[in-house]
Amino acid sequence: MHILVIGAGGMVGQKLIARLSAGALPVTRLTRHDIVLPPPPPASSFPVETFVSDMSMPGEAEKLVALKPDLIFHLAAIVSGEAEADFEKGYRINLDGTRYLFEAIRKAGGGYKPKVVFTSSIAVFGAPFPDAIGDEFFTTPLTSYGTQKAICELLLNDYSRRGFFDGIALRFPTICVRPGKPNKAASGFFSGIIREPLSGQEAILPVGEDVRHWHASPRAAIDFLIQAAELDTAKLGNRRTLALPGVSCTVGEQIAALKRVAGEKVASLIRRQPDETIMKIVAGWPRNFDPKRAIALGFKAEKSFDDIIRVHIEDELGGKIPG
Amino acid sequence: MHILVIGAGGMVGQKLIARLSAGALPVTRLTRHDIVLPPPPPASSFPVETFVSDMSMPGEAEKLVALKPDLIFHLAAIVSGEAEADFEKGYRINLDGTRYLFEAIRKAGGGYKPKVVFTSSIAVFGAPFPDAIGDEFFTTPLTSYGTQKAICELLLNDYSRRGFFDGIALRFPTICVRPGKPNKAASGFFSGIIREPLSGQEAILPVGEDVRHWHASPRAAIDFLIQAAELDTAKLGNRRTLALPGVSCTVGEQIAALKRVAGEKVASLIRRQPDETIMKIVAGWPRNFDPKRAIALGFKAEKSFDDIIRVHIEDELGGKIPG
Repeated sequence: MHILVIGAGGMVGQKLIARLSAGALPVTRLTRHDIVLPPPPPASSFPVETFVSDMSMPGEAEKLVALKPDLIFHLAAIVSGEAEADFEKGYRINLDGTRYLFEAIRKAGGGYKPKVVFTSSIAVFGAPFPDAIGDEFFTTPLTSYGTQKAICELLLNDYSRRGFFDGIALRFPTICVRPGKPNKAASGFFSGIIREPLSGQEAILPVGEDVRHWHASPRAAIDFLIQAAELDTAKLGNRRTLALPGVSCTVGEQIAALKRVAGEKVASLIRRQPDETIMKIVAGWPRNFDPKRAIALGFKAEKSFDDIIRVHIEDELGGKIPG
Repeated sequence: MHILVIGAGGMVGQKLIARLSAGALPVTRLTRHDIVLPPPPPASSFPVETFVSDMSMPGEAEKLVALKPDLIFHLAAIVSGEAEADFEKGYRINLDGTRYLFEAIRKAGGGYKPKVVFTSSIAVFGAPFPDAIGDEFFTTPLTSYGTQKAICELLLNDYSRRGFFDGIALRFPTICVRPGKPNKAASGFFSGIIREPLSGQEAILPVGEDVRHWHASPRAAIDFLIQAAELDTAKLGNRRTLALPGVSCTVGEQIAALKRVAGEKVASLIRRQPDETIMKIVAGWPRNFDPKRAIALGFKAEKSFDDIIRVHIEDELGGKIPG
């Protein structure tokens, strides 16, 4: 199977490719795409090609689709903070880029009908919410990023219904603990307050401890993608967007978990520095879900935030807490 | 107030302009736009200009926005049947045309911030449904037309949230009884089985009598538009899309109402001729709503299908049944 990963250089893209290289899915050929050159891929039993271009420019998606990949993971996007700060860039990258890809597939002809796994986000929802958001709750995004993701979900559903490709959209929980440097996502602190202290560094907490949010680990995120790739989409009918399982907890509960897993001293590295802008954005975000469909289909995430921290220590810190 | 009506030549556009000419809203200037020349407007106390162009072509929306209308009614669309038959045309007219308009407003600058009233549709919903669709039910369109309307709703909400204009999107019930000739909408028969018999002509019924649907009269549609134009959108918060009140009834109940209002002989002009294609499309359509928000805001439709037939007789047939 020839797999194309769009957004191959991002955190999720790199982890996905590592998992593929370790034997997930019957890969015979891998094509990586990103807007800048990703780091070299890990060793693998299949050939890897890398393309660098701006898919939001007309004509670029066609070049990727001309390779006729059997399975496309479309992970590329600019994050919420950047899409909010730069209105035009957000719509160009997150909406037009995706639409160019879908159009290139539609126009490829010759019976070409790949599977397309698209990463959406819980940012398609906007407050006020019920206690737990059910699978049939409406999308009222409060960011341009969430709007762009909701639009791409609608397009994916329509293109799939029309038979142009076989799509599935996954509404990722906030991925926590993100490894590496902070990105421009307004959600960055949810990871920062765990990641930085575990590395002996101070972390800024810009919101109150009562803020509740919805999390899954990077490992769970890759599990979601692999399972979506293997899923028989006939089970989805014409509703090809899935909210995924996760852990609902408050920032206070995150900190309590950090204390349990890594001790008081580590947790003491979190510094409270309220940021009105971030507090306002986060106030509109989902807190909890009841993702019955995805659970019935077998999608799984961690059961507790303690587990999420342990996954980070295992996968990113070699199994132990530094210092 | 300078009002721009886009889609001025359509049934709703013409009736809206007639209502404006009769004194609804404090109009000082009216600009009509459509892709073909609309019939002459009725006499009015304000000047009327008419523009003919294809707003789905880049640059055309800018010419309209350059006139700086205070209020824009955006009614233009190709109907569901046509958007399903011609994928590219549907996206070009119903999505790109609307986006060009929104972009032209955003880029106009100089503090320009018009009110925009956009006609969406209950086609944003797709089966299976609850008995009555509530205001927070999710959009899973089963047609490209419904997809395009749902996307435009999301865009309108985001552009309004960002302060580019002051938008409101109205999910019209199926407008019944449509006057005039049938159009290409798959929903056309809901009107045809009333309109044609009332004019002494045979009408085709392509679906079973148990098909339930959601209706409001053309008169109610114009009431919705005028009220939306007058509504203080602060009451909508960031949820600027409203499902509207209507009458839920089966085709059998429509026919029974026709018999009550116009007699058995008129109703006998309905000829059953099942059409699998139309039956399949209609099976995915909403049947009933619980539009609490719109009702709380004061939007009103007819109370029964008998009333809907009477409105047609009053407004289109001079108050009496021909023949």
